[in-house]
Amino acid sequence: MRRALSLAANGPATGLNPRVGCVIVDPDGVVLAEGWHRGAGTAHAEVDALSHLPAGAARGATVIVTLEPCNHTGRTGPCAVALIEAGVSRVVFAVSDPGRASSGGAERLRAADVEVVGGVLADEGEAFLADWLVAARLGRPFVTLKWASSLDGRTAAADGSSRWITGPDARLDVHRRRAAAGAILVGTGTVLADDPALTARAADGSLLPNQPIPVVIGTRAVPADAAIRHHPHPPLLYPGPDLNRILQDLHTRGIRSAFIEGGPGLASAFVAAGLVDGYLVYLAPTLLGGGGLALGDIGVTGIDQQRRLTVEGIERLGEDLLVIARPLDFPHAETAHTETRI
Amino acid sequence: MRRALSLAANGPATGLNPRVGCVIVDPDGVVLAEGWHRGAGTAHAEVDALSHLPAGAARGATVIVTLEPCNHTGRTGPCAVALIEAGVSRVVFAVSDPGRASSGGAERLRAADVEVVGGVLADEGEAFLADWLVAARLGRPFVTLKWASSLDGRTAAADGSSRWITGPDARLDVHRRRAAAGAILVGTGTVLADDPALTARAADGSLLPNQPIPVVIGTRAVPADAAIRHHPHPPLLYPGPDLNRILQDLHTRGIRSAFIEGGPGLASAFVAAGLVDGYLVYLAPTLLGGGGLALGDIGVTGIDQQRRLTVEGIERLGEDLLVIARPLDFPHAETAHTETRI
Ligand SMILES: NC(=O)c1ccc[n+]([C@@H]2O[C@H](COP(=O)([O-])OP(=O)(O)OC[C@H]3O[C@@H](n4cnc5c(N)ncnc54)[C@H](OP(=O)(O)O)[C@@H]3O)[C@@H](O)[C@H]2O)c1
Ligand SMILES: NC(=O)c1ccc[n+]([C@@H]2O[C@H](COP(=O)([O-])OP(=O)(O)OC[C@H]3O[C@@H](n4cnc5c(N)ncnc54)[C@H](OP(=O)(O)O)[C@@H]3O)[C@@H](O)[C@H]2O)c1
Repeated sequence: MRRALSLAANGPATGLNPRVGCVIVDPDGVVLAEGWHRGAGTAHAEVDALSHLPAGAARGATVIVTLEPCNHTGRTGPCAVALIEAGVSRVVFAVSDPGRASSGGAERLRAADVEVVGGVLADEGEAFLADWLVAARLGRPFVTLKWASSLDGRTAAADGSSRWITGPDARLDVHRRRAAAGAILVGTGTVLADDPALTARAADGSLLPNQPIPVVIGTRAVPADAAIRHHPHPPLLYPGPDLNRILQDLHTRGIRSAFIEGGPGLASAFVAAGLVDGYLVYLAPTLLGGGGLALGDIGVTGIDQQRRLTVEGIERLGEDLLVIARPLDFPHAETAHTETRI
Repeated sequence: MRRALSLAANGPATGLNPRVGCVIVDPDGVVLAEGWHRGAGTAHAEVDALSHLPAGAARGATVIVTLEPCNHTGRTGPCAVALIEAGVSRVVFAVSDPGRASSGGAERLRAADVEVVGGVLADEGEAFLADWLVAARLGRPFVTLKWASSLDGRTAAADGSSRWITGPDARLDVHRRRAAAGAILVGTGTVLADDPALTARAADGSLLPNQPIPVVIGTRAVPADAAIRHHPHPPLLYPGPDLNRILQDLHTRGIRSAFIEGGPGLASAFVAAGLVDGYLVYLAPTLLGGGGLALGDIGVTGIDQQRRLTVEGIERLGEDLLVIARPLDFPHAETAHTETRI
């Protein structure tokens, strides 16, 4: 399964479909074939692995796959059927398919007398697919909130000046992570105050290959000469304030991960709405005081309502710290089966 | 010298005098004797080491000591003279004595034809003596500012509730560090809002052996039934607001390290006045929003006035983080020679 997970990582990170890896072994544990999914419209991992074998060669084999084989005809046929037709005798998977139409592969396999074992290395599998699972279960992009602040929680000095709080290593890290996101969201306040380009750039200022789609939320107009208008993707403009509807619309456009880059007004609204799945807090070793806060009102009045997080990692980036955290109650208990792989 | 530094660590951490260690070796490098200073009024490290040797045994020896031998008659005679009388031929030390009356030992030794080498492992020696050197150079206690906040810089929720933001490991760490301080300072705001005991306690609630002296700053009266009135030491009360004068007075009372525990009003005033030598920031993985900030106005209006820090260490304490930092410009360039060892 660990091998299957590392094969899965060969797939594209920002696509519509999950990254899935597959290993086919014979009854003695000898590897017969490997495969992975290369993105929507191409063969699923199981079918990719089978395609490397002559007809009949998978008979009696065990298929180890990171996600439950699908049971649905999209742009490709159901994998469960392909495995049954290939005559495999055993299927081992990590994560159940949460899709409304695509789930049920395990049952279909069992009905055809294939032995099925689910949940193997499930935690690692879930962590690997976190983005896609949020999208699949909730029907919206995985939302990452990023801010850069001083040790006392300020993103700007009292006069609004904020360049630069964090150092070059931290800023480069932000651009690298931007490039892995489907969209980057800001409020009109940030556009009007900072006129950001919202591109993902290398240290030399050149554009990285992947550019997130810029999204501006708010009723105020984005000026005709705003830097964002020169972004490789035309910006999406939403008047707000319903963040759930905006995320749903981004999802229907195929965006599976959204990066919130501020300002405090929009960031606080996302936290208050419980719509943040991951936090990236860049802390610079400096003190600013004053009113330029990273977050404002997040709807917490007493300590019993605090928004507890779990720290997933801490990195030192030059002089700065990056705290990577997620809500304590993630992954969302209230999962809904809405997603279908295509 | 490394051995001398580890001997020095045997001395008491909260005393008036520096912790000093000493090793005496013969010309072949064989250790003849070791010593350390046990606190004001007892033998200095060099004299302690000499006391383990018969008369004449140190003739021609090399003395390795963490602090420049003193040149001053306090409760004990000048160490420089004792070393000259013992006939040693070489003295190696790490840190120069900054005391107004006690410095000059190296010159006195050189005048008596003893070879003197200063500055050996000076950085480690300075770091080890940081508290005492601030006190010696500036004539005030070493000031540590501690706060515990959420990742967004809040020490309390909007309604003022704050128990508990950090977990038991972080709270125990605070008590351990309190016990190593000479005094613990709070503003009247904190006394009136929280009624803290300001004792240093073990996990079971029992008092640790060393208790810092509680100090309250502000014009408002401390209630007759305040918990602080039951502290093992009677509290010192200062009306404020002149923090420099308060620190000088604490220094004359023999206090060499002060621990600022809040609230935001007093903490911000210390930062604004440039009187903080070390920061202990406990960060809990939680978000609070609202107005309960760790620091308020620290006199920074633009980003160019930010108070840059250097991170000395990061510790994970249960779910929490401890960031240990100091001002970037520490140790204070504007050193004054005011201190005398006794
Ligand atoms: N250092 C950093 O990491 C960083 C990053 C970004 C920004 N900043 C600073 O943040 C400041 C701007 O703060 P800001 O709070 O005005 O910016 P903002 O969060 O970008 O914009 C707030 C605006 O977002 C719109 N909005 C739409 N839906 C909303 C909802 N559900 N909840 C709240 N707002 C919604 C509203 O616009 P309408 O009023 O137009 O409807 C609102 O006024 C600037 O000074 C900037 O420099 C710092
Ligand atoms: N979570 C934590 O780590 C933590 C720790 C401590 C406190 N707190 C919270 O902090 C809140 C209290 O805040 P606060 O700011 O009122 O408390 P504070 O800082 O303890 O007290 C402020 C008072 O200190 C006095 N003061 C004397 N000299 C001063 C100077 N140079 N500059 C500023 N103040 C000086 C003034 O008292 P007079 O007006 O009497 O002259 C001033 O009103 C409480 O809600 C408490 O729960 C949180």
